Amino acid sequence: MATEYQPPVADYAFLYGEAFGLDVVARATGGELTAEDATDIIAGAGEFAASVLAPLQEAGDREGARLVDGDVRLPAGFAEAYRAFVEAGWVTAEAPVSAGGDGLPGSVRAGLGEIWNASNAAFALCWLLTAGQIHALDAAASDALRETYLSKLVSGEWTGTMNLTEPDAGTDLGAIRTMATPREDGSYAIRGQKIFITWGDHDVAENIVHLVLARTPGAPDGAKGLSLFVAPRVLVNPDGTLGARNAVTTVALEHKLGIHGSPTCVLSYEDATGYLVGELGGGLAGMFVMMNSARIGMGFQATGIADRALQQAQAYAADRIQGRVLGRDGVAPIAEHPDVRRLLLSMRSDVFAMRALGVYVADLFDRAESDPALLPLAEFFVPILKGWATENAVALTSDAIQVHGGMGFIEETGVAQHYRDARIMPIYEGTTAIQSNDLIGRKVIRNQGATAAELFAQVEQTVADLRAVAGAADAGAAAGDEGATAGATGAVAGRAADRLERAAASARRATADLIGFAESPRDAHAVSVPYLMLLGVLAGGWMHGLAVVAVAAHDDAAAEDAGRLTLADFYGAHHLPRVHALAETVASGETA
Amino acid sequence: MATEYQPPVADYAFLYGEAFGLDVVARATGGELTAEDATDIIAGAGEFAASVLAPLQEAGDREGARLVDGDVRLPAGFAEAYRAFVEAGWVTAEAPVSAGGDGLPGSVRAGLGEIWNASNAAFALCWLLTAGQIHALDAAASDALRETYLSKLVSGEWTGTMNLTEPDAGTDLGAIRTMATPREDGSYAIRGQKIFITWGDHDVAENIVHLVLARTPGAPDGAKGLSLFVAPRVLVNPDGTLGARNAVTTVALEHKLGIHGSPTCVLSYEDATGYLVGELGGGLAGMFVMMNSARIGMGFQATGIADRALQQAQAYAADRIQGRVLGRDGVAPIAEHPDVRRLLLSMRSDVFAMRALGVYVADLFDRAESDPALLPLAEFFVPILKGWATENAVALTSDAIQVHGGMGFIEETGVAQHYRDARIMPIYEGTTAIQSNDLIGRKVIRNQGATAAELFAQVEQTVADLRAVAGAADAGAAAGDEGATAGATGAVAGRAADRLERAAASARRATADLIGFAESPRDAHAVSVPYLMLLGVLAGGWMHGLAVVAVAAHDDAAAEDAGRLTLADFYGAHHLPRVHALAETVASGETA
Repeated sequence: MATEYQPPVADYAFLYGEAFGLDVVARATGGELTAEDATDIIAGAGEFAASVLAPLQEAGDREGARLVDGDVRLPAGFAEAYRAFVEAGWVTAEAPVSAGGDGLPGSVRAGLGEIWNASNAAFALCWLLTAGQIHALDAAASDALRETYLSKLVSGEWTGTMNLTEPDAGTDLGAIRTMATPREDGSYAIRGQKIFITWGDHDVAENIVHLVLARTPGAPDGAKGLSLFVAPRVLVNPDGTLGARNAVTTVALEHKLGIHGSPTCVLSYEDATGYLVGELGGGLAGMFVMMNSARIGMGFQATGIADRALQQAQAYAADRIQGRVLGRDGVAPIAEHPDVRRLLLSMRSDVFAMRALGVYVADLFDRAESDPALLPLAEFFVPILKGWATENAVALTSDAIQVHGGMGFIEETGVAQHYRDARIMPIYEGTTAIQSNDLIGRKVIRNQGATAAELFAQVEQTVADLRAVAGAADAGAAAGDEGATAGATGAVAGRAADRLERAAASARRATADLIGFAESPRDAHAVSVPYLMLLGVLAGGWMHGLAVVAVAAHDDAAAEDAGRLTLADFYGAHHLPRVHALAETVASGETA
Repeated sequence: MATEYQPPVADYAFLYGEAFGLDVVARATGGELTAEDATDIIAGAGEFAASVLAPLQEAGDREGARLVDGDVRLPAGFAEAYRAFVEAGWVTAEAPVSAGGDGLPGSVRAGLGEIWNASNAAFALCWLLTAGQIHALDAAASDALRETYLSKLVSGEWTGTMNLTEPDAGTDLGAIRTMATPREDGSYAIRGQKIFITWGDHDVAENIVHLVLARTPGAPDGAKGLSLFVAPRVLVNPDGTLGARNAVTTVALEHKLGIHGSPTCVLSYEDATGYLVGELGGGLAGMFVMMNSARIGMGFQATGIADRALQQAQAYAADRIQGRVLGRDGVAPIAEHPDVRRLLLSMRSDVFAMRALGVYVADLFDRAESDPALLPLAEFFVPILKGWATENAVALTSDAIQVHGGMGFIEETGVAQHYRDARIMPIYEGTTAIQSNDLIGRKVIRNQGATAAELFAQVEQTVADLRAVAGAADAGAAAGDEGATAGATGAVAGRAADRLERAAASARRATADLIGFAESPRDAHAVSVPYLMLLGVLAGGWMHGLAVVAVAAHDDAAAEDAGRLTLADFYGAHHLPRVHALAETVASGETA
């Protein structure tokens, strides 16, 4: 039995209003929305998710999606939940104003993304892909396509999919063989097989819009020959009503380790009708808008699944009595056992770091719209967020099982589902290796570490801020006018400054080592994942450093703040030291 | 589709004959068996496992054990496989001579243990528990019990189980409530419920011997009041023939994340007949013999499951073509991609370290029989082997999925089963936290780090040996009489010496830090798992160091040796640096 979902409203209130030293929501919206408004939105979404989506999570896993006479049937309750989701406006909330959506700032959409995924990751994938397609069509579609398809996606009436992978074209999209042959009426006949199509067929909405990467006759080999097409499940009449079924069929449904409620389809296109999106040969660039959106979305999914597993572990550990607890009198729950407490703090401190980085990156993209100089740093963070957060989430769900002991291995307990669901995250939307190649190739080596240096400089600014906090606490204590809380804040800030400074130094060294491999690319690529993880762990430590600075500036919520200090201190002792080990690995290059 | 199982015969030949600088099998058997004989045994077991056990692994997962009208039915083929296993003598092979077994040395039983688990972990659990019970009864049972029960276990006719856990007594065995009330005939009436009983009921042998921890009337509270009982599934007549069913019933079968072929039972004892083993109140000590055996066995299971997952990943990566491989001409399989190669080397170097430590520890127990001064070090390694190897195996099976990309998440691929199966290992037979408490409490703090210092001194001896290898290679190169291989050996040995020396220094510091927490036990226990993992990673590096020294001493198999050098070098660059990060964590104690 999964525990009830508790939306992390207090964390988002802190992240929106305090963590980054100002109200990021007000900055992003020119004051139209404030952190307080955004927190209300998060609370509302959390309530919806807890009451409508979360109750379907386990049943979705047990029942799973089924293929019945060629059509996919989703688990009981999914269609009703989707209707409620649309009616509550949560699809439109994701869409930009230019596409007819609410245009919520990225920081708020980050919170929503986490909440949908935490409450029901299998369900949330539908939303995630539709949202990604909305961004892709908004960037590249003609007015006619916008009117016919984009508007229906934004309203939530139809859902979207991403069709890239083929049996012999996974990571290597240049090998795609699906053909799109032009017809006289301006449409294309699409023929080929696509695999691993998430929500590729279902019965929760009246139509599905497939965004398909395909090759046109005579197009060059490789990725340059790919174009992007919209192909609906059901054809649309000129008057906008639905017509006949398009020639795309679901030939199989995958039997997966997890996310059973999310149908993963093999789709066969048999001269299905499609419409070109953007320019011929611009397919990869067009799809990249959707992929980038999906990769950032994976960061939110990782945080969501990890937090849900953490919540279940916390609830179990708070309830379960077993053995005498060291250093505690009387009966205490296992949450008080030193090692169970370690596991819970490990998970909590990581979840906070992932959540905070998600908000930071989403907000950075918003800021980059008016200040393009920020775009490289925003894009730098995409592979880090996707790679580090999803790898973390797998480890976190494993820890959540461990907290349960033997009960964690029993399916009915419910925590094993998170472990199974999480495992796909470091694979889909580009494996961790793909993320790390993007990171070191396009974003580190190409500009000689300039963007990485920006990050390190910001981390070092936070080190200076932490030292100021520690110094002020010392000065206050010397003057005898300090309470215990400020003393603790100062001590934590001092330790955080020392640890973060050393971590940044290791990261600078690793970056120089990596750039030193520019002439022997296999050396760089053989340690690209360790390098990505290093930057992720460092970024997480930075987020905790910012939190400590914010806590010192806002001493109005002592208890809540003490929790944040504990998490920051724990992260510095248990997670951040990995940076040094990873830096040593990066320096080694490829083992001969 | 799982790939065919390839028993690691070459590795065992190396471990038995070369890795530890002498023939460990000949030493253990006074020359009765040699490394060559032992390797033949391993090869024979491997052939049996590959042809009889491995083919049932996937079907066992899919079909699983079922409870039918109160009796457990195992998947198709399990009963036939068990009969073949017994007839081939593999149960008797495990038993000591004193119990009527073959008395194979520990190093050979380590290899067998790995092989049974690699080929079919669910099946192997039956063997593992029977073997553990054989050791427990051999140590404590009366002649009558030996004759009636032990002989049937050693012949393989009956199988054994371990009955400890109850709903409110998991980690805390002192809370056990099952009662054993003496009867006039000298037997006991056992009443209570036991959960998580592995192979607690099945249809592959004619009887099952339950070893039950229970409390007697008037016994003291806590663990001191526990005694050990043998309770058969079917009662045994005075003439040794089977009689009526005993009053123990299977009330439920758990629905688990993995090892579906292994029945996990809830057993209800309703005044079932049992017989005291050893002294009243000596239950925990008696069970500890079985538990110790099972914990070491978990090290072999971890190696086995990890190696099987690795084999599958290697086979997939050697076969799958995808994308252009950096720095390689023409078409190359994904195994050549730098990051796939990293994942495979990471797994291979860890599996070798786990396998080598398993042989080392098993052999150390043999040596301790004639030299009790070695016993503390042997026992020191039990929690490390169990904790580190099983945690590693979980991570390794995750890596094996990652190598497969999207296919890894599809159940039919078969690799996800290893990921599911592996997850129980850090939990059963004592969680990692239980192992780490045993390690720091009984084996480090109690003797002020004396045993740990023995280990570090041995590691440092290997550092000196590695320096000698590096020096000899340098001298040879200077004299101009060295081939490329010896030069590479020298370079790897030099790096290994440096890395291992620093790792040992970090481990010494961490041990001193831990002992420094003696007065604040929560600080020690809050970092006990990181400390255990530190020692495991160090021990793994030591095993690789020994391998490099052995390779330098035997330059007759250059290609095979080059592989060992690569693994050692990789381990030093990718795994060993974790020691420093973990040492920093250990120093931090409990986060306030």
